[in-house]
Amino acid sequence: MEAYRCDRASDTHTVMPLAVVLAESTADVQVAVRWAAQHGVPIVPRGAGTGLSGGATTVAGCIVITTERMRAVQVDADTRTVVVQPGLLNAELKAEVARHGLWYPPDPASFQICSIGGNVATNAGGLCCVKYGVTADYVLGLEVVLADGRAVRFGGALIKDVAGLPMVKLFVGSEGTLGIITEITLRLLPAQPAHRTVAAWFDSPAQAAAAVAEIATGIRPSMLEYMDRLSVNAVEDHLGLGLDRDAAAFLLAGVDELDPHGRDLARIIEVCAAHGARSAAEVEPPRAAELEAGRRAAIPAVEERGRVLLEDVGVPIPLLGELIAGIEAISRANDVEVAFFAHAGDGNSHPLVVFDNEDRDQQTRAERAYGEIMTLAIRLGGTITGEHGVGRLKRPWLRSQIGDDALEVERRIKTALDPAGILNPGTIFKETQE
Amino acid sequence: MEAYRCDRASDTHTVMPLAVVLAESTADVQVAVRWAAQHGVPIVPRGAGTGLSGGATTVAGCIVITTERMRAVQVDADTRTVVVQPGLLNAELKAEVARHGLWYPPDPASFQICSIGGNVATNAGGLCCVKYGVTADYVLGLEVVLADGRAVRFGGALIKDVAGLPMVKLFVGSEGTLGIITEITLRLLPAQPAHRTVAAWFDSPAQAAAAVAEIATGIRPSMLEYMDRLSVNAVEDHLGLGLDRDAAAFLLAGVDELDPHGRDLARIIEVCAAHGARSAAEVEPPRAAELEAGRRAAIPAVEERGRVLLEDVGVPIPLLGELIAGIEAISRANDVEVAFFAHAGDGNSHPLVVFDNEDRDQQTRAERAYGEIMTLAIRLGGTITGEHGVGRLKRPWLRSQIGDDALEVERRIKTALDPAGILNPGTIFKETQE
Ligand SMILES: Cc1cc2nc3c(=O)[nH]c(=O)nc-3n(C[C@H](O)[C@H](O)[C@H](O)COP(=O)(O)OP(=O)(O)OC[C@H]3O[C@@H](n4cnc5c(N)ncnc54)[C@H](O)[C@@H]3O)c2cc1C
Ligand SMILES: Cc1cc2nc3c(=O)[nH]c(=O)nc-3n(C[C@H](O)[C@H](O)[C@H](O)COP(=O)(O)OP(=O)(O)OC[C@H]3O[C@@H](n4cnc5c(N)ncnc54)[C@H](O)[C@@H]3O)c2cc1C
Repeated sequence: MEAYRCDRASDTHTVMPLAVVLAESTADVQVAVRWAAQHGVPIVPRGAGTGLSGGATTVAGCIVITTERMRAVQVDADTRTVVVQPGLLNAELKAEVARHGLWYPPDPASFQICSIGGNVATNAGGLCCVKYGVTADYVLGLEVVLADGRAVRFGGALIKDVAGLPMVKLFVGSEGTLGIITEITLRLLPAQPAHRTVAAWFDSPAQAAAAVAEIATGIRPSMLEYMDRLSVNAVEDHLGLGLDRDAAAFLLAGVDELDPHGRDLARIIEVCAAHGARSAAEVEPPRAAELEAGRRAAIPAVEERGRVLLEDVGVPIPLLGELIAGIEAISRANDVEVAFFAHAGDGNSHPLVVFDNEDRDQQTRAERAYGEIMTLAIRLGGTITGEHGVGRLKRPWLRSQIGDDALEVERRIKTALDPAGILNPGTIFKETQE
Repeated sequence: MEAYRCDRASDTHTVMPLAVVLAESTADVQVAVRWAAQHGVPIVPRGAGTGLSGGATTVAGCIVITTERMRAVQVDADTRTVVVQPGLLNAELKAEVARHGLWYPPDPASFQICSIGGNVATNAGGLCCVKYGVTADYVLGLEVVLADGRAVRFGGALIKDVAGLPMVKLFVGSEGTLGIITEITLRLLPAQPAHRTVAAWFDSPAQAAAAVAEIATGIRPSMLEYMDRLSVNAVEDHLGLGLDRDAAAFLLAGVDELDPHGRDLARIIEVCAAHGARSAAEVEPPRAAELEAGRRAAIPAVEERGRVLLEDVGVPIPLLGELIAGIEAISRANDVEVAFFAHAGDGNSHPLVVFDNEDRDQQTRAERAYGEIMTLAIRLGGTITGEHGVGRLKRPWLRSQIGDDALEVERRIKTALDPAGILNPGTIFKETQE
């Protein structure tokens, strides 16, 4: 059971669960939930455990219900939809639908290791989401096991359906606090269009951020990723891709083949040059694949430098430069390293606060910086989490972002669906009524 | 106050409201809601009153709060968002953002006469939604006046924000049953790409439906509309566009300029031909605009033939042919005329049951047909409403679509946010607890 104590946020304050339920069916989930409801035992739902907000870490006296054995998948090419159990990995789903000439766009950097159920529970984003939308945009139907053990269906293989309250949308991103998702119907697109890629290197973050802001106003890239010097160097140490270790910032932009005559591609290169890029040019597909893999490896690469506290802050896109400058100041003031990379085209970024686990003082400063970065994002009209979810780790900052009234309203929804508070207590909401 | 008794569904069973509140600000709405809450008076929220499900018709002893005077709009080109009050018309919003070189896609056929607040409250669809998504896909933030008069903000000008439960998504499509929307932040796209248009005429509905099904599996048209002979003739009587009165079915398909080398356009023509179209060809932009206007005029055109009961049923796209055949049978069995047109690429259709207001017997048969069509859609795994909402008129069929458990869960949400049941009683939910 040790392996089920925490998710990828690697919280060290976790406890051993009472039991881990390796559910193989909706009925299994129902049995476990009914038992837990009867005995007032808290439940932690779990997919692949790649979450970065502590949403799948244990709480005292809980059972963990994992969906890892629920992996059935059924593509319906005629309706361009797929019905899938939550435990299937995102990459497995992509591969299965590709066999039918179809495409499931959402692509978290973790797509090879995270489950579809976890994606739905967190409303996961990814690299192509800047153009193709996040998980919520693809979910048409759900089966959910509620806190009392009933399995209820919402929606189905219909592109448009407004009959009743939008319950499907309410469950997407609810982080296991309202029910356990046991089956998902997803909308698919025709095969992914090929894309062309631009790599641009800058001498200052401000230049790169200004380029992002301008691109975002007039173009729809299919990818627009940002990495700072620290992340580039971490990835370079890790993978040796021949990246420019001296540049202050790196942008990786994609434009798909639906861009007629390469017009948008040319504009992206122009905009980067106009904002002082030291180089900005199209890269050929094999190199583009390497650079994308480099971007996807940023988290594990930075993790090799020490323990990390992982942020997921977002701001309105024109404020990206201000966010970066503010984080640099926080890093200096607390004397801790902060690596910064971002799904920049969405204004969503991942500052990683790095610290030495053995150095208590540094850990304290890292934790302070972690909080200060969220406070900064809120001050800029932003969010403490763009895609990873609130989980347990960011919960203390939620109220200051959304305010008392919004939190109270959300608490009412939570109480309406889970009156005894057994579903993932401590995630989004405090374990006890606030 | 007579003008505020009903919406475009023209329900004849409505009563005179106690009062109509012409709110000019959020504060005005709050005052009215607080007064109503204090006195237990039901509230009917209202935008432009173009709704087709009776969601804005009065109930006994109610006040109507209309947003028609709340029309402020502020475009932020830097974040590619707009903040708008609910009373602004969809067409006015489109025009305003176009002045900044931007585009707000959702385009209900009623876009010139419906309000953005009404669009958000119903999660309105439209013609380009088959490619560009429905209203929900564009709403980033809301200010909502709750049943107790508090004004609460959810979300904002952030493309990605998963902090807390997805409350913005819960309010979109809630038809005024959970709160009154007083401000909306919408995501915008760069200027609308030009599109090319195909018109195809068929000898049988089955052929046209089969063509739609095939197009929908592999292509992403920017419009895919269907009209049957009756609707074509009604529009022809109305506008005299020189349409083919003899054809059994008409498809109007759009492909936008991001279609490289006209590949998708050619495929659509091929698919139509392969399914036996008597003609299928590209039409030039001025003619395309006329045909689109013709499609948009379908409802008023059919309304000239008598009173109508307007459906909004949807089915999985491959079942469109079966839906049409079933409706023809219902029309024959009840001896009433049913015109049929559809946002076919979304599987969402509008059968219009036509009857003579003076003929009691025909009215009874029309009402029976209206119910039978919804029952048919449910049997085909479809929905009673794809975009217009449940309102008061389709409420009796909601339970048989979504089931007891789903309805009970939705009722819990309703009760959590509106315990006294003063917000739009009778819409979605029965006035008294079920
Ligand atoms: C290297 C790396 C890169 C990453 N990149 C991205 C990225 O680009 N974008 C992004 O969005 N995320 C990213 N993540 C975070 C993570 O992969 C996502 O949050 C993912 O959606 C979690 O899926 P999971 O199956 O691992 O869920 P878990 O970690 O198991 O659970 C996540 C949350 O969902 C709940 N949950 C899981 N399954 C269910 C269910 N069936 N029903 C109800 N609740 C459930 C859990 O209780 C928990 O609150 C990254 C993570 C890593 C390690
Ligand atoms: C000719 C014609 C064509 C149409 N074509 C389409 C189409 O293609 N697609 C489509 O989706 N619809 C279509 N409609 C239906 C209608 O225009 C839409 O439902 C529209 O969204 C309603 O907007 P409204 O401002 O008129 O709302 P109203 O009719 O005033 O209200 C609609 C519902 O929303 C609620 N509401 C309104 N404003 C608020 C608010 N601020 N806060 C909370 N609740 C509120 C009302 O209580 C009611 O339940 C068409 C209608 C006509 C007459």
